Amino acid sequence: MQTPQKMAIVGSGLVGTLLAIYLKRAGHSVSVFDRSPDIRNIEFSGRSINLVMSDRGWKTLEDIGLDEEIRKIGIPVNKRGIHLKDGTLNNQFYGKEGEAIFSLSRGILNRKMIDLAEKEGVDFFFEHKIWDVNLATVTLFEGETEQDAWRELKFDMVFGADGAFSRIRHRMQRQSMFDYSQEFMEIGYKELHIPANADGSHKLDKNSLHIWPRGNFMLMALANLQGSFTCTLFMPFKGENSFENIKTEADLTAFFAEFFPDTKEVIPDLVRDFFKNPTSYLAIMKCFPWTYEDKVALIGDSSHAIVPFYGQGMNAGFEDITVLHEMMQKYGDDWKKIFSEYEISRKPNADAIAELSKRNFIEMSDLTADANFILQKKIEKWFSDKHPEKWTPLYSRVTFSLQPYAEALAIGDAQNEIMQEVLKMNNIEEKWDSPEVEQRILELLK
Amino acid sequence: MQTPQKMAIVGSGLVGTLLAIYLKRAGHSVSVFDRSPDIRNIEFSGRSINLVMSDRGWKTLEDIGLDEEIRKIGIPVNKRGIHLKDGTLNNQFYGKEGEAIFSLSRGILNRKMIDLAEKEGVDFFFEHKIWDVNLATVTLFEGETEQDAWRELKFDMVFGADGAFSRIRHRMQRQSMFDYSQEFMEIGYKELHIPANADGSHKLDKNSLHIWPRGNFMLMALANLQGSFTCTLFMPFKGENSFENIKTEADLTAFFAEFFPDTKEVIPDLVRDFFKNPTSYLAIMKCFPWTYEDKVALIGDSSHAIVPFYGQGMNAGFEDITVLHEMMQKYGDDWKKIFSEYEISRKPNADAIAELSKRNFIEMSDLTADANFILQKKIEKWFSDKHPEKWTPLYSRVTFSLQPYAEALAIGDAQNEIMQEVLKMNNIEEKWDSPEVEQRILELLK
Repeated sequence: MQTPQKMAIVGSGLVGTLLAIYLKRAGHSVSVFDRSPDIRNIEFSGRSINLVMSDRGWKTLEDIGLDEEIRKIGIPVNKRGIHLKDGTLNNQFYGKEGEAIFSLSRGILNRKMIDLAEKEGVDFFFEHKIWDVNLATVTLFEGETEQDAWRELKFDMVFGADGAFSRIRHRMQRQSMFDYSQEFMEIGYKELHIPANADGSHKLDKNSLHIWPRGNFMLMALANLQGSFTCTLFMPFKGENSFENIKTEADLTAFFAEFFPDTKEVIPDLVRDFFKNPTSYLAIMKCFPWTYEDKVALIGDSSHAIVPFYGQGMNAGFEDITVLHEMMQKYGDDWKKIFSEYEISRKPNADAIAELSKRNFIEMSDLTADANFILQKKIEKWFSDKHPEKWTPLYSRVTFSLQPYAEALAIGDAQNEIMQEVLKMNNIEEKWDSPEVEQRILELLK
Repeated sequence: MQTPQKMAIVGSGLVGTLLAIYLKRAGHSVSVFDRSPDIRNIEFSGRSINLVMSDRGWKTLEDIGLDEEIRKIGIPVNKRGIHLKDGTLNNQFYGKEGEAIFSLSRGILNRKMIDLAEKEGVDFFFEHKIWDVNLATVTLFEGETEQDAWRELKFDMVFGADGAFSRIRHRMQRQSMFDYSQEFMEIGYKELHIPANADGSHKLDKNSLHIWPRGNFMLMALANLQGSFTCTLFMPFKGENSFENIKTEADLTAFFAEFFPDTKEVIPDLVRDFFKNPTSYLAIMKCFPWTYEDKVALIGDSSHAIVPFYGQGMNAGFEDITVLHEMMQKYGDDWKKIFSEYEISRKPNADAIAELSKRNFIEMSDLTADANFILQKKIEKWFSDKHPEKWTPLYSRVTFSLQPYAEALAIGDAQNEIMQEVLKMNNIEEKWDSPEVEQRILELLK
């Protein structure tokens, strides 16, 4: 058992709130600060992509007995539904029979988690804006504006779970020997909406992650509980098919008619959604170290903001909590050791999932419609079914296992090299499931 | 001729001051702000590495007729003087007969340039701390502390020449679509001092850049006008031979006796210098964009801080001015175009010199004492003398030419691949200047 500490968490998002529950259960006093109003009292913002929970996220919830509660508000998704330009729909299953990721509305999940944390005795302070932190004295500075006279709030320990634009990291960044990078994507996104049918049913298969892959842009849809879908358009800011080039209703209608004709019936309020909802940015943030002595630690997006294309942002953040918790159990009151082992363990894995997520945009927006890629996936699945001990596809390693991301990435790269060799075989399209191909893969695996 | 504008430059360092002269000559009103006192009234800080001026820097001075003035306070350096552990001294010439870089004391150069800028009518405001900028209204915020009530200073245009930890860039960084990275090296540095002889002469050859290469650390010395040398110890912060491990006078004396025995006589105040002077950090900063509309521009270290191992930091900053000035002459009052062409032209070259500088630590601290590397340089020089139109060594491209850094880097990499092939030839040590080797290089160049 650890000596109780007075802890503050900045940020009441998913990672901050779940971390609060863990720390509270470990016997600490926990105050969570958030600059926004209580998400339970406001409408969601219209700039969210639906979340998917997979094995890593579930593990963090299971370890603390909250998985059942959350599973009730999610929808299992076991495949990609690829909508080609000619109207064809292809299903590409994610894993084996019974394996699925879970679609969750960010707002609903966050509300639920805050309820659960409050029940545990966590104190929430909404509309409390934390502008700065004194790392050495573990003092938070709170005020209405950045130029205000600030109130000082003193703690034993502070966790920065305040997301990609973290103020806590911002202070750490001004130290020597602190590495940091922010990289914005050329691609932005906009939320659109597929409402439920009149009878409350879903207009599309709710157990698919729907993708309309169109090369360097794509539309995506994930089901909500009440029959609707949260839909997201990912597209370059500039260039031929881009947000910049859709200026008028006519532009928009023509663009959708050309590239997404089959969405006309399911997105009735396209024009309103498109021009009302903001175009959001995507950025990758990296930094190191993640902690300051035994006093301050970053967790979740504040230390490793990634792009959403692998559906791993929340899962990676939850896995941070799992690892932090392991270290707490291992090292007791030695918080210097806990923090240092935590950051050393997580950093390479955070970098790996950042890389995997970035690559996956190309897979989703382009390759899912590519015959060669589909053949590769087919061969991998076939070989993996025959030799499960020899081959787990990369997607499954990342999504349906707890293998460290860095290992999954390294093995995935090696597997991909093998598959590139296999795809060079004569008439591979015809003999892809032949003993010859099986032998070739077995050889290459040596 | 451009329409006169009211311009502010933040930072009175070398780049800020030279830019001020250029802008003043172009007819603008120019105010330079610096948080520090006037460098002409204070002692230098004991944490500087001597500068070297090479062709790019000279060009920027020549174009405005200031090169003669500056050449008087510099010392030509035409070679590396490599001090091996056994006491041997090897000379490695930088270029052809007559080619040299110029060693300059940062403080003396900066004082001189501020004098020159004042003569031109530039206004300097020392001990004026700029904490923030409003990019859209081009307003600087000045005050004694970060939490003060700030004075507002309004301009038509602001240049951030405020170095690696730029406040102007710091504001730009908080915008969307602004890419930024800071990366600290594992190696730090400390200034030491080789005084002049009693008669004012230099204790070592003043026309050499002296290096004591010792693998992952090194000592370096560059001559000053008055007979002294500014000496710099580059070494890891942590590990076997590191700053961390030199805690006492005894540690220090033993360390120098083992690795730099021949410096005992020339660095008489080693112990005082070492424990008095700070250990400084080295960092690489990158960002993009460098400008905001036609209102704000970064220049020099604020947009591309690099490590000092190629002696190109000041030269790269001065070249920024050359390119900005070219764009001013080309595009007149179209400052949006001037800024955008400036940043597009400079960014790849800034990235290239960052990479080259990073690599050069290994060359200086390790390879200069490596037989293979010395042979490679010898072959390159021999071949380049025979076929000057076919081969200019990388160092000469960077130092004694105005070829864009990005091109120099690309060609240098290609040349290095060729040399790696050549070094694999049988008995290359003996036949390095044979017709066979010449033929092989000519073939590989095709």
